[in-house]
Amino acid sequence: MTRSGLPSPGQAEADLDTPALVVDLDALERNLDRMASAARAAGVALRPHVKTHKSVTIAHMQLERGAVGVCVQTVSEAEAMVEGGIRDVVVANEVVGTGKLRRLASLAQKATITVCVDDAGNLDDLGRAVRRAGSSVGVMVEMNTAEYRAGVPPGELFLQLAQRVDSTSSLRFVGIQAYNGVAQHIRDHPSRQAATERNTALVKESVDMLARHGIRCEVVTGGGTGTYDLEAASEVYNEIQPGTYVFMDADYLANRDRLGGPFRDFEVSLHVLATVMSRRPNIAIVDAGLKAVSLGNGLPMVKGGRASYERFADEHGVLAPVEGPLPALGHQVRLIPVNCDPTVNLYDHIICLRNGGVEGVWPVDARGY
Amino acid sequence: MTRSGLPSPGQAEADLDTPALVVDLDALERNLDRMASAARAAGVALRPHVKTHKSVTIAHMQLERGAVGVCVQTVSEAEAMVEGGIRDVVVANEVVGTGKLRRLASLAQKATITVCVDDAGNLDDLGRAVRRAGSSVGVMVEMNTAEYRAGVPPGELFLQLAQRVDSTSSLRFVGIQAYNGVAQHIRDHPSRQAATERNTALVKESVDMLARHGIRCEVVTGGGTGTYDLEAASEVYNEIQPGTYVFMDADYLANRDRLGGPFRDFEVSLHVLATVMSRRPNIAIVDAGLKAVSLGNGLPMVKGGRASYERFADEHGVLAPVEGPLPALGHQVRLIPVNCDPTVNLYDHIICLRNGGVEGVWPVDARGY
Repeated sequence: MTRSGLPSPGQAEADLDTPALVVDLDALERNLDRMASAARAAGVALRPHVKTHKSVTIAHMQLERGAVGVCVQTVSEAEAMVEGGIRDVVVANEVVGTGKLRRLASLAQKATITVCVDDAGNLDDLGRAVRRAGSSVGVMVEMNTAEYRAGVPPGELFLQLAQRVDSTSSLRFVGIQAYNGVAQHIRDHPSRQAATERNTALVKESVDMLARHGIRCEVVTGGGTGTYDLEAASEVYNEIQPGTYVFMDADYLANRDRLGGPFRDFEVSLHVLATVMSRRPNIAIVDAGLKAVSLGNGLPMVKGGRASYERFADEHGVLAPVEGPLPALGHQVRLIPVNCDPTVNLYDHIICLRNGGVEGVWPVDARGY
Repeated sequence: MTRSGLPSPGQAEADLDTPALVVDLDALERNLDRMASAARAAGVALRPHVKTHKSVTIAHMQLERGAVGVCVQTVSEAEAMVEGGIRDVVVANEVVGTGKLRRLASLAQKATITVCVDDAGNLDDLGRAVRRAGSSVGVMVEMNTAEYRAGVPPGELFLQLAQRVDSTSSLRFVGIQAYNGVAQHIRDHPSRQAATERNTALVKESVDMLARHGIRCEVVTGGGTGTYDLEAASEVYNEIQPGTYVFMDADYLANRDRLGGPFRDFEVSLHVLATVMSRRPNIAIVDAGLKAVSLGNGLPMVKGGRASYERFADEHGVLAPVEGPLPALGHQVRLIPVNCDPTVNLYDHIICLRNGGVEGVWPVDARGY
């Protein structure tokens, strides 16, 4: 909720109140085009994860470029997307709890909904909720990819759960969800590739095992911004679900590409815009702290690199000089968050810029819960 | 924005969708009463900092118990409070930037507004904005209390800035803002007291210096939940501005009181309610991660202490057993955030519980920007 009204079209970046979440539309559009082309060239479907942007507008832009639908993490996100006219939503996560299952089953009356399972009891609860709502829901079995993640380890338990889906009349077995979270930020490409290949081999075994038991996987999906090219080329996955590529962040900037250089397949299109509000010889304090940029995984970069963000409080960030003088009182800086997904979740609106001025203001439709 | 409707009065805690921000009203009310009594007994004014709760309802509860007004950190928070009927707001922070100064000056047409300054140029901009709006704004000079904080160091510069306020016709010099942020979480009471006394001595020097030059401080304010009793007893401060006491968090729980025991002047009244959504022998994954609980300063505690929150992703938290079995799939846990202020800022609503059921749902009126 902005109490003072939103920025107006044409308003200059320098006149924006801060902290503000700003997106450079040219860079965003290039990122969207690049990922759409990469998926098309590899012959895999693109189902972007909208947890990154939580924006119905950007989801539509992704669909217009050929995405088959979207992924979400929560029922809340699914509801926001469906409310915004998105008709094919995969909840790439398990949904547990009576209230949430009822909401999901009800949502499936309005859109094509698919959800993940890793537990027989939860699967049965889901089946009952869907039957009660008179709707139909697709189900993927999530394969466990690391000790601390959800999902069923490949093997007998995996098969049994898939068979249980298959025999539940209100549900439709769709395939395998296997997102290799731990691989996404492995910095060097050979190691990232090896981790992906190990995971993909287990996925292939699971696909084959199901096939031997007469269960066909329509969809084999996973992959994130760090590994999208690898799953896409695997000939095991037929769909990828990257999210962060639309905006990029400092964490992915630290990955290296297959040539050993910095990972630059996509551009940083999102920044937190902040203003210097207090100034002393070697310190510039900006109005962006913990409540304006997610710091759970590290401190943001300062665009341009001539200052570094050293300390924070709830509404303040302290910059130290790196090269040249610090920005003066009243001047703006652009911060690149370490992780853009939880940063976007702090804001109600994304301010869209082109040629230095506001072109649009898009709500973060799926913010919060 | 909750897309599925809000919890209904009488709904049981066990039936709440998660993650959810829940407040135990009995404990909240006891916290409010205790701080009001402590301020009254010490003969200082209480001006609670609402950055913690961002709730107009709780602000009114504080006023009803004798608070003289509220403190905020941002113009956005001030606007939300005034819109909610709060008539006396101190921005305990500097306000820099044309847009923000215009909004502040305009707000002063509807309520009593005070703001802090630490820079002559910003002060002049403020004076112009207030004159242009035809309103009147109170000004405190913020005293610098630590190297990385805003404010003017005590001494000649401080005096000059106070004199500049005094001679600006659209502004009214109110006093000194000196919040000793670094002292709040000093764990042992003697060290916390020593840090407070060092700071208070500098504040007293500043008050006396201004007095020698004919400038009277109507208000000398500061103090947080960690040091409220100390500034209150100082006979230098005549107002305290604690915030977190209403809810408490794991960071303040780690302070020790004057007898060397755990700091329990106030009770934890706020939790993040989460549900176990995936379960394996030594792991329970809950649906509360980085987007549901602020992790910038550490991982939350699990109420009851029989499990520990070990790892996180955006929408997941991994619990390990400490004592006894982990909670089963579908069961709820209550998390105590390390810092409640940035956690509250993740939510649009606070769910208020009494006797195990929902009594009310209050909006986080000042969430975001």
